[in-house]
Amino acid sequence: MRLLYHLPLSPYSRKVRLALAEKRLAFELRVEKVWERRPEFLALNPAAQVPVLVEEGGLAIPDSAVICAYLEETYPDTPLLGANANERIECRRLVAWFDGKFAREVSENLLFQKLMKRMLGRGEPEGATIRAGYQNLRGHLGYLGWLAEHRRWLAGDVLTLADLAAAAHLSALDFLGDVDWSVSPAAKDWYARIKCRPSFRALLADRVPGLTPPGHYADLDF
Amino acid sequence: MRLLYHLPLSPYSRKVRLALAEKRLAFELRVEKVWERRPEFLALNPAAQVPVLVEEGGLAIPDSAVICAYLEETYPDTPLLGANANERIECRRLVAWFDGKFAREVSENLLFQKLMKRMLGRGEPEGATIRAGYQNLRGHLGYLGWLAEHRRWLAGDVLTLADLAAAAHLSALDFLGDVDWSVSPAAKDWYARIKCRPSFRALLADRVPGLTPPGHYADLDF
Repeated sequence: MRLLYHLPLSPYSRKVRLALAEKRLAFELRVEKVWERRPEFLALNPAAQVPVLVEEGGLAIPDSAVICAYLEETYPDTPLLGANANERIECRRLVAWFDGKFAREVSENLLFQKLMKRMLGRGEPEGATIRAGYQNLRGHLGYLGWLAEHRRWLAGDVLTLADLAAAAHLSALDFLGDVDWSVSPAAKDWYARIKCRPSFRALLADRVPGLTPPGHYADLDF
Repeated sequence: MRLLYHLPLSPYSRKVRLALAEKRLAFELRVEKVWERRPEFLALNPAAQVPVLVEEGGLAIPDSAVICAYLEETYPDTPLLGANANERIECRRLVAWFDGKFAREVSENLLFQKLMKRMLGRGEPEGATIRAGYQNLRGHLGYLGWLAEHRRWLAGDVLTLADLAAAAHLSALDFLGDVDWSVSPAAKDWYARIKCRPSFRALLADRVPGLTPPGHYADLDF
């Protein structure tokens, strides 16, 4: 069986889980505590990061961008990048936006501060960093809402990897109760729609020892 | 004519310039002072970053990863990702390594600290950040040397985007005189080989007001 090394609240792992599920590719999950730097895992990915996908034959594919490119080329039946050059540019632009800009400005300030400091026992997150994260998140929710008002899905008429990347980050932040959805009703409506997809179910069932998500996290009608 | 908005020492712009030149696609360069946040440029790329490629017909493609994916799909004659699934995985893994891990651990600590602080008048770079950058660079040169010892090019037998991504970061650092090539003779040998390619000539001719590169920067026989 195909195997995905992951962490439950890693946005990059979540994006790959959603992409695999949208493409109806069966896989097993294995939690990899990357901070333990297990030699067998470093052999799969010297960058010591999740996700890493291992195909049934043993082919190992590290890094969420590399995995998603591989999945699109190897299993093109349910395309996730759009149909033509224009759509692919817009889809990839938004994936770069969420995995690059949003990650730097929001996820690293909130999610990684809170989780990694907790996991690694490095004390409390810094107040200024957390405040910057919340402030940036409001701006990003505004942009996401603008996209959702003007298009059916974020990159255009069909669901693409752009939606999965955005939802991966937001769902991890939502698990921590960090998303004030009242900032943008259009963003909330988009998130409610993607949350209802079968591919999302496993994410909503995630449990992390010592962390309880808010009541609305797994509520499809929030 | 195809137009590339860039900054001379942006590693991401340099990667795209190398990719365009390797594919023998003619282009003009235009310096974009991204910190001025010119509205016409923000319309091309809301992320306010270079590079942005504009095709002759007006199609705008932002973000170096998006541009490189677009170029590979649109102009496949000189492939830069490798020939089969395995080679593409290794090539993309290394691009992610240099544009992700190397960028975070080295380029952001050295290049961006020095240049952006200078451009934006935000004072002197922090000593601890610079020291961390040099320390990390030694480790990365070791890894690069290991790859160069075991393979003809970084991802395998042929030159790929992995070499261009690595060379883009290292050439920008080398312009600042920040690379101690004596750390790894194998890395130095690989860099001397890529530096001799015609695609590299324009990079070696770059001039930046107020900055003088070290004598070996443009020396093909350094």
